[in-house]
Amino acid sequence: MDRQRNSVGDLPGGLSAFPITPVTSAGVDLEAFQRIVVRLVAAGVDSIGALGSTGSSAYLSREERRAVAGAAVRAAAGVPVLVGIGALRTDDVLRHADDAQVAGAAAVLLAPVSYQPLTDDEVFGLYEDVSARCALPLCVYDNPGTTGFTFSDELHIRIAALATVAAVKLPGMGFDVAAERLPRLREAFPHGVSIGVSGDWLAADGLLAGADTFFSVLGGLLPHPMRALTRSAQSGDAQTARAISAEFEPLWMLFRRYGSIRVVSAAAELLGLSAAPNLPRPLLPLPATGREALAALLPSLTERR
Amino acid sequence: MDRQRNSVGDLPGGLSAFPITPVTSAGVDLEAFQRIVVRLVAAGVDSIGALGSTGSSAYLSREERRAVAGAAVRAAAGVPVLVGIGALRTDDVLRHADDAQVAGAAAVLLAPVSYQPLTDDEVFGLYEDVSARCALPLCVYDNPGTTGFTFSDELHIRIAALATVAAVKLPGMGFDVAAERLPRLREAFPHGVSIGVSGDWLAADGLLAGADTFFSVLGGLLPHPMRALTRSAQSGDAQTARAISAEFEPLWMLFRRYGSIRVVSAAAELLGLSAAPNLPRPLLPLPATGREALAALLPSLTERR
Repeated sequence: MDRQRNSVGDLPGGLSAFPITPVTSAGVDLEAFQRIVVRLVAAGVDSIGALGSTGSSAYLSREERRAVAGAAVRAAAGVPVLVGIGALRTDDVLRHADDAQVAGAAAVLLAPVSYQPLTDDEVFGLYEDVSARCALPLCVYDNPGTTGFTFSDELHIRIAALATVAAVKLPGMGFDVAAERLPRLREAFPHGVSIGVSGDWLAADGLLAGADTFFSVLGGLLPHPMRALTRSAQSGDAQTARAISAEFEPLWMLFRRYGSIRVVSAAAELLGLSAAPNLPRPLLPLPATGREALAALLPSLTERR
Repeated sequence: MDRQRNSVGDLPGGLSAFPITPVTSAGVDLEAFQRIVVRLVAAGVDSIGALGSTGSSAYLSREERRAVAGAAVRAAAGVPVLVGIGALRTDDVLRHADDAQVAGAAAVLLAPVSYQPLTDDEVFGLYEDVSARCALPLCVYDNPGTTGFTFSDELHIRIAALATVAAVKLPGMGFDVAAERLPRLREAFPHGVSIGVSGDWLAADGLLAGADTFFSVLGGLLPHPMRALTRSAQSGDAQTARAISAEFEPLWMLFRRYGSIRVVSAAAELLGLSAAPNLPRPLLPLPATGREALAALLPSLTERR
């Protein structure tokens, strides 16, 4: 499929790190957030995903989101920042897109956040509305675990043809599925639309099957090993990529059991990067058993660079 | 289970009608909304559920919700109004609860609106926080189709013990399930906590199995037949209740296929009660085929009183 792309810059592939947004009883802790972002930049991540699902965007007010987007861009010091603009109502999404542009975002990241289950036409209409309003590169954020919405490949292809769509972030999938699906989507997408994967425990599979980008929750807290995983997979060193992935499997078991946001939130606290509790209620801190398991795991995992 | 209940008034059972909140490109159409509520009052509904799922509460700003709650109470002219206060973040839920109280709500209605999938402890904590802050009777709003959260009976029982919980709104269930489940929950709930059902096409089943309340989407637009269904079921006239339910089955097929909110939104327009489109984007109007089927059905259904 060939098409003229207007004004859509290329987004970097590689490791896109998704930090938490620490939220205490006093509100968003911008200082702690910037400390976390500065660490990511120092570790050489390729881009930063601010206000993703892990960044609690769905829970924050417009003012808080604006402040976080600005803080992210300043702390990123030139590293491209993708800013999450998802919200239940299209009018709010468009406001967040305006704010992201003013903040200096390199791209906007949009999940079809749902209350009433959305139809394919409604989700397409949402992306169409944003594409018509906001000139920034748009990354489609396919996250059924939080939105409840499942994209078909047909819908992905329809949306990827919109003028500003620059990237698609897919849920994690095993190697065999990815090796079949990614080339098929790439063939159907306009030239230049990059394809990334999330679901940290499946990232090595996705990258080895050809994904351009690893959108990583853990990369938002422990960037060094996730960068090493990404680089080794993308240079074709499957053995190293899989070995790093295997090493983190105990941590990813906690992700699957408790939800990755609760685990990285507790890890940020254990590493002294944020106060606790740091999640917006009704979200609660990691329960004690999970916290103990995490505390036992962290030292060996953080020694690794 | 016996327990002293403080300051929680009894909520009326019977038909609780859930109107749409018309949202045009100019914002919430309060005038159309009040016209709809006045019709419900004239038809003798037992209570009104403003800002429910069908009332698009999840899509509205705090200011819009405040205006709708006030308009509902004024138009209801003494009929008790339950006001939906659900939101992703607990801080927002508490603000909506304050606003509902100021508006003169008879009760607040709370669904565990989710982005990150919530744990049982988080959902309990949400209800606990609201119960500690807001003295109004609290109705637990169990709506897995929109929240993605599934309540266990254990969790319902735990939440129903909170001091302000006055009612629980359960999803629809067939007669056999309801006949077993409702008495079991009633036995475990504190005295005075009422049990209602939703899912219009299963309402006759739920009421005949002993539910106190029918929380009705269609009752928010066509109150007469839904009131007749409720009264006949609650007086033990199963045959009439089932006959009315069967008569509306073609409409409820459209509910199941297109989502009830899109169907009642189009019906409000076809009945001249609201302009179109009247749903907040990204929600789109009923597609043409559904609209034609609805237009063909409505005349015979609205002749019935």
